[in-house]
Amino acid sequence: MNFTAGRGTFLKDGKPYYVISGEIHYFRLDPRLWEKHLLLLKQSGANTTSTYIPWDWHEYEENQFDFSGHTHPARDLLRYIRLCRKVGLHLIVKPGPYILAEYELHGLPGWLMKRCSDSARAMDEHGNVIAPDLMSYLSDEFIWYAFLWYEKVMPILAPHQYSKGGPIIMMQVCNEVGVFQWLSGRIDYNPSVIALYRQFLREKYHSIEALNKLYGTRHADFERVVAPRGNISSAEEYRAYYDFHLFYRHYYALYLDTLVRKIRSLGIDLQLTHNIPGWIYGNAAELPMLISTYEEVLRTRTDMVFGLDHIPEFVSFRNAHSDLACNKILEALQPHGPVWAAEFQAGTREHHVRNDPHDMETFYFASLAHGMKGINYYMFSQGINPEGKGFFGKTFYFQTPLDARAVKSPLYRVVKKCADFIKREKENLLLSETDAEVCVGFYKPYFYTELTASQMLKDRRLHVGILGLRLDPQFVREEIFFNGLLRGLQTLNTPYDVRDLQTSSVDALLAYKQLWVVSTEFMDADTQGLLVSYVRRGGHLVLYPAVPTLDLYLHPCTVMKDELNLHVEKSVSPNKVDAFGIEDVFTMLQEKQVFGCSDGEAVASTKTGEVCGVRKRIDGGWITALGFAFGYTTDEHLQLYETIVSFDRIRKAAKISDPDIQCVVRRGKKYSYMFLLNYQNQKKTVTVNSKRHTIRPLSYKILKKKR
Amino acid sequence: MNFTAGRGTFLKDGKPYYVISGEIHYFRLDPRLWEKHLLLLKQSGANTTSTYIPWDWHEYEENQFDFSGHTHPARDLLRYIRLCRKVGLHLIVKPGPYILAEYELHGLPGWLMKRCSDSARAMDEHGNVIAPDLMSYLSDEFIWYAFLWYEKVMPILAPHQYSKGGPIIMMQVCNEVGVFQWLSGRIDYNPSVIALYRQFLREKYHSIEALNKLYGTRHADFERVVAPRGNISSAEEYRAYYDFHLFYRHYYALYLDTLVRKIRSLGIDLQLTHNIPGWIYGNAAELPMLISTYEEVLRTRTDMVFGLDHIPEFVSFRNAHSDLACNKILEALQPHGPVWAAEFQAGTREHHVRNDPHDMETFYFASLAHGMKGINYYMFSQGINPEGKGFFGKTFYFQTPLDARAVKSPLYRVVKKCADFIKREKENLLLSETDAEVCVGFYKPYFYTELTASQMLKDRRLHVGILGLRLDPQFVREEIFFNGLLRGLQTLNTPYDVRDLQTSSVDALLAYKQLWVVSTEFMDADTQGLLVSYVRRGGHLVLYPAVPTLDLYLHPCTVMKDELNLHVEKSVSPNKVDAFGIEDVFTMLQEKQVFGCSDGEAVASTKTGEVCGVRKRIDGGWITALGFAFGYTTDEHLQLYETIVSFDRIRKAAKISDPDIQCVVRRGKKYSYMFLLNYQNQKKTVTVNSKRHTIRPLSYKILKKKR
Repeated sequence: MNFTAGRGTFLKDGKPYYVISGEIHYFRLDPRLWEKHLLLLKQSGANTTSTYIPWDWHEYEENQFDFSGHTHPARDLLRYIRLCRKVGLHLIVKPGPYILAEYELHGLPGWLMKRCSDSARAMDEHGNVIAPDLMSYLSDEFIWYAFLWYEKVMPILAPHQYSKGGPIIMMQVCNEVGVFQWLSGRIDYNPSVIALYRQFLREKYHSIEALNKLYGTRHADFERVVAPRGNISSAEEYRAYYDFHLFYRHYYALYLDTLVRKIRSLGIDLQLTHNIPGWIYGNAAELPMLISTYEEVLRTRTDMVFGLDHIPEFVSFRNAHSDLACNKILEALQPHGPVWAAEFQAGTREHHVRNDPHDMETFYFASLAHGMKGINYYMFSQGINPEGKGFFGKTFYFQTPLDARAVKSPLYRVVKKCADFIKREKENLLLSETDAEVCVGFYKPYFYTELTASQMLKDRRLHVGILGLRLDPQFVREEIFFNGLLRGLQTLNTPYDVRDLQTSSVDALLAYKQLWVVSTEFMDADTQGLLVSYVRRGGHLVLYPAVPTLDLYLHPCTVMKDELNLHVEKSVSPNKVDAFGIEDVFTMLQEKQVFGCSDGEAVASTKTGEVCGVRKRIDGGWITALGFAFGYTTDEHLQLYETIVSFDRIRKAAKISDPDIQCVVRRGKKYSYMFLLNYQNQKKTVTVNSKRHTIRPLSYKILKKKR
Repeated sequence: MNFTAGRGTFLKDGKPYYVISGEIHYFRLDPRLWEKHLLLLKQSGANTTSTYIPWDWHEYEENQFDFSGHTHPARDLLRYIRLCRKVGLHLIVKPGPYILAEYELHGLPGWLMKRCSDSARAMDEHGNVIAPDLMSYLSDEFIWYAFLWYEKVMPILAPHQYSKGGPIIMMQVCNEVGVFQWLSGRIDYNPSVIALYRQFLREKYHSIEALNKLYGTRHADFERVVAPRGNISSAEEYRAYYDFHLFYRHYYALYLDTLVRKIRSLGIDLQLTHNIPGWIYGNAAELPMLISTYEEVLRTRTDMVFGLDHIPEFVSFRNAHSDLACNKILEALQPHGPVWAAEFQAGTREHHVRNDPHDMETFYFASLAHGMKGINYYMFSQGINPEGKGFFGKTFYFQTPLDARAVKSPLYRVVKKCADFIKREKENLLLSETDAEVCVGFYKPYFYTELTASQMLKDRRLHVGILGLRLDPQFVREEIFFNGLLRGLQTLNTPYDVRDLQTSSVDALLAYKQLWVVSTEFMDADTQGLLVSYVRRGGHLVLYPAVPTLDLYLHPCTVMKDELNLHVEKSVSPNKVDAFGIEDVFTMLQEKQVFGCSDGEAVASTKTGEVCGVRKRIDGGWITALGFAFGYTTDEHLQLYETIVSFDRIRKAAKISDPDIQCVVRRGKKYSYMFLLNYQNQKKTVTVNSKRHTIRPLSYKILKKKR
């Protein structure tokens, strides 16, 4: 008996398994209704339920534990686990230490606030405590108490693991690590963090002189190094911040590692998981940055599978590309596990968000089209907070499939419909794939800015102009990469895969006809070399809006420029260019790269007549290098994507008469599925490969075909 | 023959007149199709058309003008004006100097870029030019050239004014003055601005010693005063910035004044207008701040009527309160003119925004419910930019009622339906009113932060914590006032009016049963006194989340506290309070005001048992003072609004069985209209005053009744 995350899918007893889970918080429900909630979840077609186990709820006073309900019937976790088993549901447990979940103090016990000294808490650069309930993850005190909690809760859970014949199949370790830092835009400078930071630098640089040279500092030794703070005003400060981002990735890895080692020592052999947030008011452009904060864990902890929190709030044409883009990016960074939705929107915690069942149905089926291989409806059941435990008032979540009294809402039917489909199509759907001929390169360093530039930061610490650069990585990744290229390809119904440029081989990239890389002025030499090899060995590299000429520490690095013989200069011209015969293509920046005496074909020119795009053959392959920034804000941009894609006769998912309709084809072993998605609030009648179809407003249609 | 803005409506020849206008850009259309576009506009029920007159288009080279088409048929403005007359449409002209309109250089001529020296351009605090096409409004050079343009264009227009029997009824002066500063978050520190700033301070303070004392500076004289820059780190710097905001309001007034005086000198007697932007991605919470930037013009230039740019992008439950709120606020600041939509969304310039005709119909009719007294569809006709003239590529606007070839889209029918309704209902609708018993106080100084704290600023210059304050005015006005109170009242179907607290008399306020004031820790003594008088003379003041104890310059000012005998202290407690018997009301901030030994009834208490809300009778009236911050994020907040409103038996627009349905009753002379608005994407069957009605998803219903 085992349950694990396999390549592309979960595996139950070695066989591909679709996790259909619903989040139910037993501690927010009347225990007399527990079984009813679980039964209705099971009847909706789910095979799993998920819940936090709040530390505060079970260690209600220091050293006073209740897992069997002797102080409060809703603390009878053991009964709840037995009920899951009785009803026939698997269980995902999330025992913290942090749970968030709009629970007072994010699930930490109230008594811990008094117990812990300030030195256990996250601190700003001046040594001030940021908030009483924001602990410093690896401070001795916090870890001490968290371990005491683990020592109590893990033995309760261990006998109920799947390997022991119990219902528990997965455990989430902590919750959205780093989320406070992101949301508040405040960095934890607690001395325990700084000590680890210095250790990290020591291991990276060995000699303080090497560091001093790079950072422009005069530290006597590593113990004197001060963490970056305030705005970046020089290349040296930029370098220190870049390393600080690397460190933070290491720090999060270390924290999760510390928890996992403890968990494993307590007899837990479960598949582990963690969740990644990042939609902001209906937009997921910042989520890939959050994925990037786990890059070290993703590489080193393959017994932990990361899931995404997919909370689009409003489903519309505007964010239709977001879930696919994030799925593909996670897939690229987590080749060893399936893409799953650890929190899959069902209901809302915010009063101004409406969770229309009809719209959600479209989102759910679009998710199946977009490769979602496991889901946890968040929330399946509404909850009513125990007195004083709710962070946002009494009621926890609105418009869920079940309300707190286990009464069905219209969303219940939708959830059931989705489960019915998944179960009917079985492995044919679960193992189905899309055929991408286009690869999009994901270059992680462009995403390492959560401490210096993000949508949530109130004060941006990075202004690239100060460094003499024109391309802000945040702008490039959000408007050119995410809302530009990825939205454009999806709109064109051109299937794409994403690959991590730092871990992919040339061979892996050569499996695609085209490789699109949205670049900035900097890129490390190895990656530049990889792209050159890709071209030389027969690929077609599409690179824009800049050929990099610096490395990640802003030292000159012209591997690509030299190897591909591109002569680049900066130039300023009106924000329109002519490219591939398309007139007046809007460019987001007036500054451009122009190609002086480069050979190759001139494919784009500025309004002042300079060449700002070249296409040339190099050995077996091609490079198309464009020196101007474009996303997807006008029709001409879409034409531009289409023109470039057509050079290599890239297949589209289908030929559709209405450009508003999105189409995804998933090929299973026996059957293929064509998903037609209508994100417009209008009925659409279209021809698909010359057959007529009608799709209702904000709805979808699935055409199943024998292969 | 005259056309003017009257109290509440436009007046044509002295009679109330509903302006139904459509924006058509002749310079973006094939002149052979001009008449067709105008005819179809007329046939849609419109009575007016509106257009920019781009300086660049008509003065195509310096001192080379074309208004008759001798260089390009689309420059034949005179023919276009004649066609308007022939078709029977009034005309609104917008001759700049700035037009924006996604026209290259915002409509300024290309030759002007070379002609003007840097000293004519907006400059940052270091004296660097911000952008080549951002001129400093009142620099000698820019005004010189703008006046030369006016001297050419005004005589072309003058003979075609309505007073002379021509079609032109209104002229917009420049476009969205100040918008660049807002969008870019960058302040113009050009020496010409600073000279005016010093002049402003001289007139305000007379002696430099007075200023030095207030600002904590040591300037030898006014000529040495340096404008505020960078972050606020002390009360003194805050004061200087506060004055700088006042100055900027004066500066915008001066700029518009300068243009108007020139316009008037050139024989133009037209009603003038100006437009105010401010929706950001479907949210108008910042628009009132933009309205506030015109407060001096609004007070001093009553021959100019301001219109709003209403571009909600996506119409939904989320932004359903926004248009009413902005209309009411503009009404409060512009009692001498009607509320009109200078740009009323029709089509979209952005590729990711969809302009669904069905949703737009709901928005249009909701606007009628919400008191819109004139509209200009923006855009009525799509345009194709002349080569090189479009800022965002060739195509200007998508999904407009007419495309560039004058072919109708489904939105055309909607526009016509709306015009048919307006014309059928005539003065009965145009002069109809809502009956509000609740008044919401608008306190302008809380909105004076566009230079230091706004959604568009990349770097916030104001962090109130540094000043020892807890209430950030931006947070208070957006989350507590706009998205909290105003959304809450609308959701409860409780009609409200807005009044400017700095210009309203006690008598005017006493016309309402309740006056709600969302306050911060500061408020000037006069306004505090006004509120005290309102209470003493029989009103019911609802004040939160703080009783002010400072004036606008952060000097102690305790008029209200003293007069109403409130003992306030700061206190920190969990972010939940019990208020009016409602448990666990979420408070947005942990810091609260508590009322020590105040008399009156304790109506709210913190979790630590302190009194954080009192209700007391004072002379003829009541005050309800609450020391905690709440907006509208949970059900409990709505209950709280409802409870307080019910104290004075405030009438609702109707009794409706479904709280999701919004209801507005407008009373005309002969008929009243009940607008039922369904912003949900679900069909709703509800009882309204015990009668059943069905309303389609995202739709509306109008019940007309004889009075």
